[in-house]
This record gives sequence, C-alpha cells and structure tokens, in this order.
Amino acid sequence: MRRIRLLIEYDGTAYAGWQTQSNGLAIQQVIEAQIEAVTGEHAALHGSGRTDSRVHAAAQVAHFDTQARMPADKFAFALNAGLPRDIRILRSDEAPSDFHARFDVIAKQYRYCVQTGPHARVFTRNTALHVHAPLDVEKMQQAAQYAVGVHDFRAFMSAGSTIDPDHAVREIFSSEWTSAGDLLYYNVRGKGFLYHMVRILVGTMLEVGKGKLPVNAIERAVTSGQRCHTGATAPAHGLTLVRVEYPHFDTAQWV
Amino acid sequence: MRRIRLLIEYDGTAYAGWQTQSNGLAIQQVIEAQIEAVTGEHAALHGSGRTDSRVHAAAQVAHFDTQARMPADKFAFALNAGLPRDIRILRSDEAPSDFHARFDVIAKQYRYCVQTGPHARVFTRNTALHVHAPLDVEKMQQAAQYAVGVHDFRAFMSAGSTIDPDHAVREIFSSEWTSAGDLLYYNVRGKGFLYHMVRILVGTMLEVGKGKLPVNAIERAVTSGQRCHTGATAPAHGLTLVRVEYPHFDTAQWV
Repeated sequence: MRRIRLLIEYDGTAYAGWQTQSNGLAIQQVIEAQIEAVTGEHAALHGSGRTDSRVHAAAQVAHFDTQARMPADKFAFALNAGLPRDIRILRSDEAPSDFHARFDVIAKQYRYCVQTGPHARVFTRNTALHVHAPLDVEKMQQAAQYAVGVHDFRAFMSAGSTIDPDHAVREIFSSEWTSAGDLLYYNVRGKGFLYHMVRILVGTMLEVGKGKLPVNAIERAVTSGQRCHTGATAPAHGLTLVRVEYPHFDTAQWV
Repeated sequence: MRRIRLLIEYDGTAYAGWQTQSNGLAIQQVIEAQIEAVTGEHAALHGSGRTDSRVHAAAQVAHFDTQARMPADKFAFALNAGLPRDIRILRSDEAPSDFHARFDVIAKQYRYCVQTGPHARVFTRNTALHVHAPLDVEKMQQAAQYAVGVHDFRAFMSAGSTIDPDHAVREIFSSEWTSAGDLLYYNVRGKGFLYHMVRILVGTMLEVGKGKLPVNAIERAVTSGQRCHTGATAPAHGLTLVRVEYPHFDTAQWV
C-alpha cells in the first residue's frame, strides 16, 4: 500500500461541501468516485478538514491509500481527466505512510473576500461577498488585531457546533485585511478554527466597518464569551481555504 | 425622449453572444427585456459591437432611448435588480441625443487570457484558455509588435465573415503581452477589428510561442493575405472586451 497525497483546488459553488452529506453532492465523494475509476479500488479520501457548501479551496490537502502502481505524480493528471472542471488536483505525491491530512495539520490559512462598491460584480459573484455600505477599513484592520493570540473563541462558534464550549480555545497567528481595487481580503492563519469561526469573525468586523460594533468588538466577545457580542455569520461563498501546513509539508511551497 | 448610456459587465459563458440570435439567449435580449420591465417601453439596445458566444465584457457600452423619468444614474440599480448575476450594469448616465454606442467608437481594447501550467485551474476555467505546452513568451511579445500600425488584416478574418476582404484594413494602436503568475494576457487596442481577428492573432502567436510558426508570422500573413499563414482561431472563452473609447467618453475613466 502507498499513501498518495493530493493538493486540491475547488469552486464550492455547486457542492454540498467537502464532506459527504445526505443532502447534495460532496467534493470528497466526487474525487473518491474518480479514484475508484482510475485505480479500481474503493479508497477513503481524508481531507485536512471540512469546508461548508459554497466555500472554496485554493489549497485543500487530502490523502488516500492505494495499491495502484501509477507513478505518484501522475495521479493528478489521471484524476483530472475525469473530474468536473470546478475540481482540480494541482499536484500529487507519495506521502510517508504515517502522514495524515487531518491529524497532522499544524496551521491553516483562510481568506475571506469582500467586494465593495455600488454593484455586485460579475466575475467575483461566486467568490466574494458584495457589500454596498461604506466600510471603514482602518477600523476593521484594528479590530482584526484583537483576534491574534490564544483566546477562548466560544463566542465565535456556530450554534450548530458539536464542540464543547469548554474546548473553544484556539491560537491565531495572524489576522489582517488587505485590499486590491474594489476587493478587500481578510487573511487569517491559525492552528485551528471552530465551526464557522472565520465567517463569524468576518461578520463581526463588517459590523465594525459599518460603525455598528466598536473597534474592540472581538476582544469584548472573547472576554464575554457571548455570541450576542459578535456579528452575523458572513455568507459562505466569500470564504476560501488558501493554505494548509504540516510539520514537513506546506502547500504554500507547492502551489 | 432621453438617450441612456450603459456600462455593462458580463460573463458570456451562458449566452449565445451579445446580439440576439436564433439559437440561444443573447445578452442584448436579456437587458432589453429588463428595460421593458423597468420602463414599460420596448426599447432597442444598441451595443458598441457584437461579442461571440462565451466572450466576456468588462466594459461593454450600449444605449437606448426612453421616456421614463427615472434619474439617469438610477437605471443601473433598477436594471440590476432584475438582471441575472452574470450581467451587471456598472453605470448609467444620460448621453447627448446624437451619441451612438456603435457608430461613434474611436477605439476598442480586448484582452485575451491564457493560463499556463500542467493543469487547467478552477477559478479561470471560463475566462482563460489553458495551454499546457511550454510557451516562449519573448517570441510571442516580438510577434505581437508586428500587428501595430495600419495593415490589411484579411488573413486574420474568419471564413464566416461578411466583410469584403478589400475592406480589411485596420489600425492597431498597441499590441502586447503581459503576465501575472501563471496567467498571460494579450492586450490589443485598435480602431476596429475584423470578425475573429483578435482570436486569430492570439492563435497565431500561440503557434509562435510553441515554435511552430516564425516570430514574424503576423507580418508574413499581413503581407501574403493568406489565412493559411495564421494559426487557428483561439477559443472564445479567453477573450474579454475591456475598454471602449468615444470622442468625449472613455470607459477607462468610468470603470
């Protein structure tokens, strides 16, 4: 048996999310079917973590085991031949047999894209949240700083989360906004994230940008632990998983 | 009667092109239906020119006449409310009554996008042509220079064109390649273009980049007037209309 590691890019618009769900087609499921078509084996594909419906990935990592003899780097080409155009394997290699795409993660980076201006633009319609209201980006930038460090993020947890609120401490390494033309990007890198945490952070900072929450909104919510101190969960389609890091492997060096 | 001018952005993927065709839905037709929904009038929408099926626009210009009393700048918002997400009116204003979106054009700019690398990427799948073969961009850049100036471009005319080959002289102001990451952009600005001319120029330069045609391929085809001296017509989906210029109006100042 060999362990094959995949670097995957996908547009989540048409899918029910990464993981196989009862409702709708999952990205994992589509790739597993293609692995079976290529290898003749039914293999379980393990991703670095789930992404929700309509969330995208520029760099998702997953692994599966196979007895197929194909050179490891050829799996990308073989799988792409049958995959839909909104899912691409950008690279494949053979991983150490003890590599695990989920358990070994040491850091992940997400990007949330906001498109400003009066009209929702055409070419970012599925990858950016359109916000018409004026945003004070300087305030959002200040607010973002409060997320850095080790904090109890229970206030930034989705009501539907199965995580025990007493295990909601997470470490954020960096948290900042950048801009390019009419696009604003929230870039956040951390050891791990709670369910919907990035989207609730964004929703909170958008309220800060609109002047509806104070600049220290994130600090206040971290201290109080109250979901009512945060903004709404920002819509899924603005979010993209952009980097996954492991002890000996970083997608930023692979893309 | 007032003449309303529109700046329009569209993703051409789902459409049969700008102009109303017997086969498939045209962008013009979709906007005309929305004008009727908003004004109650049946108005003819005149664009700066046609774009083919799957060709995009970042800045198409069109005009129509109306008796509706809505402030001119509000048409963009009113029309967008009912338009599909792949067509957006970015701005609207009142044009002089003698303005004509097609007849008054003094220059147009197109961009053709090529995505290089081993795999067709997800997020440019509908807006860039994927080319796996290595391309010599320096040679393509040299080749592009030969298009600048006043030339007889009959060799760069689609077989299906209704233009008399004796009226195939066109003036190109600039013609060059730029790059950003794994994307190559061919940017061409001219007084006017023959049917499929930009796509045949691109197809020819791609052959130059692959070493299958000489660097002076464009010069040779201009001199010979022979379609057999040019490359294939590059696929439609890589092409985007990015700028239209009039004597007193330039979309580059409006976007």
